[in-house]
Amino acid sequence: MGNKAVSYAGAGKVEVIDTPYPEFILRDGPGVHPDNIGRQVNHGVIIKTVATNICGSDQHMVRGRTTAPQGLVLGHEITGEVVEVGRDVEFLKVGDMISVPFNISCGRCRNCKVGQTGICLNVNPDRPGSAYGYVDMGGWVGGQAEYVLVPYADWNALKFPDRDQAMEKILDLAMLADIFPTGFHGAVGAGVTVGSTVYVAGAGPVGLAAATAAQLLGAAVVIVGDLNEDRLAQARSFGCETVNVSLGDPAAQIEQILGVPEVDCGIDAVGFEARGHGHDAGKEQPATVLNSLMEITRAGGSLGIPGLYVTGDPGAEDEAARVGSLSMRFGLGFAKSHTFVTGQCPVMKYNRGLMQAILNDKVSIAKNVNASTISLDKAPEGYAAFDAGAAQKFVLDPHGLIRA
Amino acid sequence: MGNKAVSYAGAGKVEVIDTPYPEFILRDGPGVHPDNIGRQVNHGVIIKTVATNICGSDQHMVRGRTTAPQGLVLGHEITGEVVEVGRDVEFLKVGDMISVPFNISCGRCRNCKVGQTGICLNVNPDRPGSAYGYVDMGGWVGGQAEYVLVPYADWNALKFPDRDQAMEKILDLAMLADIFPTGFHGAVGAGVTVGSTVYVAGAGPVGLAAATAAQLLGAAVVIVGDLNEDRLAQARSFGCETVNVSLGDPAAQIEQILGVPEVDCGIDAVGFEARGHGHDAGKEQPATVLNSLMEITRAGGSLGIPGLYVTGDPGAEDEAARVGSLSMRFGLGFAKSHTFVTGQCPVMKYNRGLMQAILNDKVSIAKNVNASTISLDKAPEGYAAFDAGAAQKFVLDPHGLIRA
Amino acid sequence: MGNKAVSYAGAGKVEVIDTPYPEFILRDGPGVHPDNIGRQVNHGVIIKTVATNICGSDQHMVRGRTTAPQGLVLGHEITGEVVEVGRDVEFLKVGDMISVPFNISCGRCRNCKVGQTGICLNVNPDRPGSAYGYVDMGGWVGGQAEYVLVPYADWNALKFPDRDQAMEKILDLAMLADIFPTGFHGAVGAGVTVGSTVYVAGAGPVGLAAATAAQLLGAAVVIVGDLNEDRLAQARSFGCETVNVSLGDPAAQIEQILGVPEVDCGIDAVGFEARGHGHDAGKEQPATVLNSLMEITRAGGSLGIPGLYVTGDPGAEDEAARVGSLSMRFGLGFAKSHTFVTGQCPVMKYNRGLMQAILNDKVSIAKNVNASTISLDKAPEGYAAFDAGAAQKFVLDPHGLIRA
Amino acid sequence: MGNKAVSYAGAGKVEVIDTPYPEFILRDGPGVHPDNIGRQVNHGVIIKTVATNICGSDQHMVRGRTTAPQGLVLGHEITGEVVEVGRDVEFLKVGDMISVPFNISCGRCRNCKVGQTGICLNVNPDRPGSAYGYVDMGGWVGGQAEYVLVPYADWNALKFPDRDQAMEKILDLAMLADIFPTGFHGAVGAGVTVGSTVYVAGAGPVGLAAATAAQLLGAAVVIVGDLNEDRLAQARSFGCETVNVSLGDPAAQIEQILGVPEVDCGIDAVGFEARGHGHDAGKEQPATVLNSLMEITRAGGSLGIPGLYVTGDPGAEDEAARVGSLSMRFGLGFAKSHTFVTGQCPVMKYNRGLMQAILNDKVSIAKNVNASTISLDKAPEGYAAFDAGAAQKFVLDPHGLIRA
Repeated sequence: MGNKAVSYAGAGKVEVIDTPYPEFILRDGPGVHPDNIGRQVNHGVIIKTVATNICGSDQHMVRGRTTAPQGLVLGHEITGEVVEVGRDVEFLKVGDMISVPFNISCGRCRNCKVGQTGICLNVNPDRPGSAYGYVDMGGWVGGQAEYVLVPYADWNALKFPDRDQAMEKILDLAMLADIFPTGFHGAVGAGVTVGSTVYVAGAGPVGLAAATAAQLLGAAVVIVGDLNEDRLAQARSFGCETVNVSLGDPAAQIEQILGVPEVDCGIDAVGFEARGHGHDAGKEQPATVLNSLMEITRAGGSLGIPGLYVTGDPGAEDEAARVGSLSMRFGLGFAKSHTFVTGQCPVMKYNRGLMQAILNDKVSIAKNVNASTISLDKAPEGYAAFDAGAAQKFVLDPHGLIRA
Repeated sequence: MGNKAVSYAGAGKVEVIDTPYPEFILRDGPGVHPDNIGRQVNHGVIIKTVATNICGSDQHMVRGRTTAPQGLVLGHEITGEVVEVGRDVEFLKVGDMISVPFNISCGRCRNCKVGQTGICLNVNPDRPGSAYGYVDMGGWVGGQAEYVLVPYADWNALKFPDRDQAMEKILDLAMLADIFPTGFHGAVGAGVTVGSTVYVAGAGPVGLAAATAAQLLGAAVVIVGDLNEDRLAQARSFGCETVNVSLGDPAAQIEQILGVPEVDCGIDAVGFEARGHGHDAGKEQPATVLNSLMEITRAGGSLGIPGLYVTGDPGAEDEAARVGSLSMRFGLGFAKSHTFVTGQCPVMKYNRGLMQAILNDKVSIAKNVNASTISLDKAPEGYAAFDAGAAQKFVLDPHGLIRA
Repeated sequence: MGNKAVSYAGAGKVEVIDTPYPEFILRDGPGVHPDNIGRQVNHGVIIKTVATNICGSDQHMVRGRTTAPQGLVLGHEITGEVVEVGRDVEFLKVGDMISVPFNISCGRCRNCKVGQTGICLNVNPDRPGSAYGYVDMGGWVGGQAEYVLVPYADWNALKFPDRDQAMEKILDLAMLADIFPTGFHGAVGAGVTVGSTVYVAGAGPVGLAAATAAQLLGAAVVIVGDLNEDRLAQARSFGCETVNVSLGDPAAQIEQILGVPEVDCGIDAVGFEARGHGHDAGKEQPATVLNSLMEITRAGGSLGIPGLYVTGDPGAEDEAARVGSLSMRFGLGFAKSHTFVTGQCPVMKYNRGLMQAILNDKVSIAKNVNASTISLDKAPEGYAAFDAGAAQKFVLDPHGLIRA
Repeated sequence: MGNKAVSYAGAGKVEVIDTPYPEFILRDGPGVHPDNIGRQVNHGVIIKTVATNICGSDQHMVRGRTTAPQGLVLGHEITGEVVEVGRDVEFLKVGDMISVPFNISCGRCRNCKVGQTGICLNVNPDRPGSAYGYVDMGGWVGGQAEYVLVPYADWNALKFPDRDQAMEKILDLAMLADIFPTGFHGAVGAGVTVGSTVYVAGAGPVGLAAATAAQLLGAAVVIVGDLNEDRLAQARSFGCETVNVSLGDPAAQIEQILGVPEVDCGIDAVGFEARGHGHDAGKEQPATVLNSLMEITRAGGSLGIPGLYVTGDPGAEDEAARVGSLSMRFGLGFAKSHTFVTGQCPVMKYNRGLMQAILNDKVSIAKNVNASTISLDKAPEGYAAFDAGAAQKFVLDPHGLIRA
């Protein structure tokens, strides 16, 4: 049996290729860490992919901003049906519908034991933390494919209570693998609670998910900032206020909305490919968002930072950024007693509660991020449209189960 | 009645001068914010200063690294006896012995209500947060003086249970006004708990206080790093391991101590006047400590940052640092899911518990920081010795009550 | 100037009487603690009452279940306009519209400093904690009156940002003095978060407020239980599921709703006047609710207990309950690792955030609790209707400002 | 190969018997739940027991206060060396020295994922939570034996870094399986922090461990209460204050020590077999400790309750206690805004940090609880002495490895 999958084909290119059907072992291939080659995965399940999304962080690779090897199978936002069960799996069975956290974690190390599944110590020989189909993450095969191997499945999988119910809400549930928890983690890190005023930098899917999360947590006002008017319109569609940062720094626009130029909570849903505000709009300035958030977040507030910052950025415009250094106005943050919460979202902390909110009609995440289903074959077009700034979240549907 | 006090007399100089005896009003003077001139302080008490310490943050002003005006009365680490009580004070009386948190706070604003007394909204017309005798902090008169006005005294003062008991431990209790809580706040921000391994950057008084705090919180191993061997010897005197960063980055030395090149918790007790490690030892490199802490703190760890970073540093060596910008390897922190906790310590959160630990012989903070008592007149010598790197914490004794 | 007020006139009776206009001093009167007589209140403001609600806890007194003295002026849910300002008040001025937390607290003691305003040490000579117009709470005069003295006003008052905006939402804002924060505190104590399933015992105003709070915190399903069908209908009106406990213990009915007989979070909004379930419906059984919550709350869950339990209950049916002892199945709670969170709500922790949620149209608390405005003169009828189980929250309007 | 083990032989009797050597399957035997018979344990390891302690909770069974079946192999405080590794174990190998948490947990369920290993959903068919060798806990074979099967070993085991170092501190490390974390959990639940005053009810091993934990957490004063003078002397041996409750309720004695009749934090290390104070000393009164703690714990404080309360107690003196009901002065707790934290300690939350504290000489838990090593054959004598109130913690040494 074959396994069609989306792979990275060099800067600016993805293609759909034939790959081997998964086995309960990690075999050599593009990006697989030498120490992971031949690793037994009897604790895994193989799933038939029902939904698998294109993520903004995939774009960093596709734009050639990383050292991702050609041929790497992409995709870490995976939802599917269990079709095979490894011999060590005890609590999942064939037919179960599951959401797969994008972080791969072992459920056995010091970090997993305290819920820090984003920095598991046992899955990536290079450093703490791993993910499917991502550069420098150990080489676990990506999930923009018809079938995927999910390791440590009893630990990692979130099982949906009922298959039919799940298929009815599949576009919402598909967001549980990454962006909804990731946005939620940003809101939690920023300290959003009932009555908070919140600024979300970035109206891409993670920013819209963070804004949705802030609403779900009871925020009084959620303001989203971006350069892209279509994305801002999407934010307004579900009750957010918006700020177009191409018109200048957000403080003045925030003051018009709130009466004060500050918010309680700041969320960075942009990361290291940030562009300047106002006159500098469009020019890459990796610390823009962080510095702006220090300015507009009130003293004593927190900055939730789900946006990705990297340890090295070979494609950056200046030397400092190439080694991951940013020119941060840290003294301003200090003067305001800010707390900065960074890092990959540990999806498992949040996905069960968010699933419950979805299944009980408390939130419409798919609508809010404008989830759009396309076939696996259309993945290249999806990548291109997303890169061009489409206000859409593309969900690949390898088996035509969603469109059915 | 006069009031001898220590004042800033231009870069590199302090002198002891005569100043007016305090009244229950804030009158004009060096550094007093225009909006604070004439402010009624019927909620205040006047204390006879028993102990008032020289702080590393005073040195920033004395070195001419700030815009502090000449004539500014210095001093924000104040312990004393109540000699006059404002008409609106309800729970203090003449004769009470109190510790005065260095942060001045109103006890009535949104931030005070949640314990964030370091960023009180009502005491400094410029921005949240205030302190005695400090540039840009509203102009409240400093406490390196015979007598001091303590505003919002019912809220701010920590009363010692018994006068005689207090005098027996006065050098320890004198550390409650600032450095012991400040070091403790660093340890709390870094997530120190029972069994933690901890690295404290800086073996000045705040670093030694942070190390003491880490021990009190149950740390398994506390490692202190500095360039100054005398200060490292002081750290070893109470059971800390040490790292001399003039020999190179701390990771290798930490590995020799712990078997791994990482600690659970990192504390920055240095701040913006950081100097390079190894070859760069002695050269000012404001982000050195932060970048080093990201390297040596384990994934998932926190950085407690009590060391001061400023919004502007006119004396800095490069343009970026002059506006408080640092070249931070933030991508490394992100990859390790670090949390950064910054800001002035809200002393009131910790001083009662630390007082209890002192009064019940659980900690010897004065010995650990090598508290050394000198008369008020000797303040200039104290400042000079401290600036030269003496492994001492100077306590001024304006009325000769400690030496008695 | 006089001051019409509602007072307790013996078991089962309240009446509207003439009382003295407030001064900045606490004078002798019914229920005033001897040590509080003559207490100066220069830190207070006098307000013209705009809204003042009848509370379920007032009913305990009116039913004769306490030692409340005749003539006690009732009322602790107070909203109004500042008409006089004590000489020590710094941040309020005449004309400000404020919500007054029902807990009176000093803002200066150890407990206030950590936000535990429900157990302030300085306002009630008998024991920690105080309130307006309540037995054994120090004797502060109640607020079901035209004018009220609010002590420590800079600390206690929550100022509304704008008077006109406040008057538009006055019925919602009137709930900030007690029941909305109290219900919210129950939900927080029960650990309600995004995706939780929640059971609220009791559909009186506090129960309905707790249910509203649970929704605002992102609960997936909120189930309310009571014996009173009208009150259950009120709960259903804003999206709650309901359980009629006169039909038996709630576990079976919860299972019908959720598919499992357990919830994540349990809230006791009933307290010591609980009645039995099923066959025992109507019979007073003070531990019924607590025991039932231990049964239906999942292992690892928490019980938020805003419902009042008393240290002595002279009117109780058995000796044990008369001294506040309950027959609790504590072993069941232990086996399930339950946490029990009790006590008066510290209103100040929550009222600002809830105000923001109200002012930004995120919650309709007045509608949910069926707030009904009546004149001060109609207070006796309001008490009677409420005692008879009316599914209403009565708001007294002493100056006709709401009805206008 | 055989396997000598300690088993329950009817009320008041234990004996050493021959049992089968463990296999990677749970076979039928005394107390094994039908649904657990035949359960595959390929995720387990078999260890050679180095230390296995007698626990106070074993005594409940041995005294005949439970429905434990005769023949049940006892023991849940297990430390040993891995001698066989199940086929699905990935991170342990033969020769590793490990501490085994007394709670058995799967590392895969909702509760384990948030660290609540004391109420794992997958190991005990009866209800959440399990343990080795304990009635109603699923039937996992006890560890007072030469060899023991440890299920889900990658998840459950805490590996010591070095074998020789571990053998040097083996008596301290042996306390990590249960009582040290259990006492620590009590202290954490009670909110003990730097500067706290703490009362520990009960000077048995768990009480002494709780007192040790409180010291490690920075408590200013730790007071231990008991009826047994030998145990109180043991508490004094490491710096605790003591209260003999046979002389009356503890409040007055606490006042003599602290100057006030209250402590910040209360810990119940007694549980349901509590006896009366003062005149009632010796008489069983199951709610005595809880009621006493509500009296002496300050308003706003927490009660940490590691002492066992049971859902049914067939041997109790009155009907209510027989079904686990206690007559609690809950109204007093409510008036003081107390929080009650109950339940089995989730050992995994604490054992790593406590191990680090032991290995770095920060705590002497074995000395503090007076750990005394005896051979497995002497277990009956150990049980008898412990039941008679010996101020000792008995450690069985089945292979003579400790005494060597």
